[in-house]
Amino acid sequence: MARVYNFSAGPSCIFEEVLEEASSQMLEYGDSGMSVMEMSHRSDHFEEIINRCESSLKSLMMIPDNYEVLFLQGGASLQFCMIPMNLLYKGSADVIHTGIWTEKAIKELNRLGKAEVIASSEDKTFTYIPKIDESMINDTADYLYICQNNTIFGTRYAELPITKGKPLVADLSSCILSEPVDVSKYGIIFAGAQKNMGIAGLTTVIIRKDLIEDRKNIPSMLSYKVMADNKSMYNTPPTYAIYICDLVLNHITRKIGGLAEMEKKNREKADILYTYLDSSSLFKNPVNKEDRSLMNVTFVTGDENTDKDFIVKAEEEGFVNLKGHRLVGGMRASIYNAMSLEGVKSLVSFMSEYERNK
Amino acid sequence: MARVYNFSAGPSCIFEEVLEEASSQMLEYGDSGMSVMEMSHRSDHFEEIINRCESSLKSLMMIPDNYEVLFLQGGASLQFCMIPMNLLYKGSADVIHTGIWTEKAIKELNRLGKAEVIASSEDKTFTYIPKIDESMINDTADYLYICQNNTIFGTRYAELPITKGKPLVADLSSCILSEPVDVSKYGIIFAGAQKNMGIAGLTTVIIRKDLIEDRKNIPSMLSYKVMADNKSMYNTPPTYAIYICDLVLNHITRKIGGLAEMEKKNREKADILYTYLDSSSLFKNPVNKEDRSLMNVTFVTGDENTDKDFIVKAEEEGFVNLKGHRLVGGMRASIYNAMSLEGVKSLVSFMSEYERNK
Repeated sequence: MARVYNFSAGPSCIFEEVLEEASSQMLEYGDSGMSVMEMSHRSDHFEEIINRCESSLKSLMMIPDNYEVLFLQGGASLQFCMIPMNLLYKGSADVIHTGIWTEKAIKELNRLGKAEVIASSEDKTFTYIPKIDESMINDTADYLYICQNNTIFGTRYAELPITKGKPLVADLSSCILSEPVDVSKYGIIFAGAQKNMGIAGLTTVIIRKDLIEDRKNIPSMLSYKVMADNKSMYNTPPTYAIYICDLVLNHITRKIGGLAEMEKKNREKADILYTYLDSSSLFKNPVNKEDRSLMNVTFVTGDENTDKDFIVKAEEEGFVNLKGHRLVGGMRASIYNAMSLEGVKSLVSFMSEYERNK
Repeated sequence: MARVYNFSAGPSCIFEEVLEEASSQMLEYGDSGMSVMEMSHRSDHFEEIINRCESSLKSLMMIPDNYEVLFLQGGASLQFCMIPMNLLYKGSADVIHTGIWTEKAIKELNRLGKAEVIASSEDKTFTYIPKIDESMINDTADYLYICQNNTIFGTRYAELPITKGKPLVADLSSCILSEPVDVSKYGIIFAGAQKNMGIAGLTTVIIRKDLIEDRKNIPSMLSYKVMADNKSMYNTPPTYAIYICDLVLNHITRKIGGLAEMEKKNREKADILYTYLDSSSLFKNPVNKEDRSLMNVTFVTGDENTDKDFIVKAEEEGFVNLKGHRLVGGMRASIYNAMSLEGVKSLVSFMSEYERNK
């Protein structure tokens, strides 16, 4: 038995060193005499973990002082309702529609107010990021909403849209920590942890402090104000997921050397894969070149049976979870931070060989 | 370094065998070639885990077929708003008020409708469970709400209240799996996992199917209907927490021998501790005898400095997290399923010795 190359879109591969550390600390963490799983969230040991996790994230992402970091539950999907509950005043938000995840956000937004879709790439099966100009932004919008990296369709914003002074609310679930971002350009950044931050069950929200208001009649658990006032400990937080996130952040800081280095590695991996795809006569990537995701690389052969055969044969060789999302078909290689350069090179070798033998 | 006796109220001690199994499977689970942390929630391996977890729970608790089991996020605290959002029609619920956790539930209920407090033990600092009769139940109430075991004050319902046909909604966070319960008597049972089911970040809801309705304008993530229709996979569930829960359920089933055996062990532990407390001239348990919790045993010396001294000395001997909740003071020994008989006996020995030397 050996570890496979796991190209899952999420939950997804984790740095092996992180897993090894978690395993070795499973029965006793430091001098605590217990597992992190068993620790009271109010204990000194856990306080140290959550505080270190927060300060590592602040330092890695260079988060300015006027932002709050929250560790929440419920995934990005719970943010789809928390955001409008907390941020809608006039009642509507502008949305750039780029795939399934903005579609879900729009649906929840429309339950609590109104989503104004100011641009969409649905006309070309979401294979590009639409451009917007100032004239498209509604004066009445409370914020502008985007999904920065689209896991399913393999697109990403190479540049952020203009916002005309509106707070930019962005879903970074599948690209957070993959490269440096200028946090000061956002009102809210949010991300589920199960791609680049650790395990499912933790959601990180980075919110500009002036957007945190005491909204009346919002359930406590859905109020950014309550969560911020209680430093993410209004109730028991997902302690073990926060611990794994802390290990991941520590790994990126100390072993990788920060987000600029992380980006370099990610660009190298993506370049190798896209360069091969662009030269292949069997596999094609359908995404507009300048909008290609560094994290999720989609490809098709144009023939369903060949796609199926490729996926089966790849799995036999230890390249797993290459099947594309059921709504898109084809293949997808998610090459998050924890996917090694060696993993991508091996995949490309395998694909070349498959192509030669076809 | 050695493992301590951890009397934390939650997150709390976990069966050592479960931790050992999790540690040994951390890098590779079965023939998957990956950690459970890295598995897609849509993968065959994870589907097997969540299905086994559900069927083990159904079999252990003898959950009738007309109940749905949901694995959610957000802790019991998120249930405080989900329950009224999904169950209020006429607009109010009857509540028996027995401490901080019903207080929090009442607060959230009053944001979305009205909580009618039909009985309360606040007059005696929540040291007993108030009795109710049929005349106290409001015809207009949509359901009757209780907290079955009160972690902070150390009380529990030895018998369920009459409900006059209303659905009984019960918070079993700190007593689920500690003894058999007759699920058919409840409308909803819910519990955070971090006491008897594993780790923080997972909340189990057992709901009678006729209570699951398609409520309009509820956010998807807060709808029991959406969660039930998607078999707890509307979005990525807390996969690793579900895996740990599965290991815990397996341990209770195979190593302990089921909930009747679990109850026997829990009663033995509680008896030893209460018998000592009732005979002690230094320590006192303030709870009405018939309402004493089997899981959370509170005690005081009546002198704050002695309490403090005891807690410090106990910690030096490896008995940790004995400090009572900040709202109650004194001490509390939480003796959940995973606390061994040996742990309780050792604590009582230590307390006796402390008393002799006083």
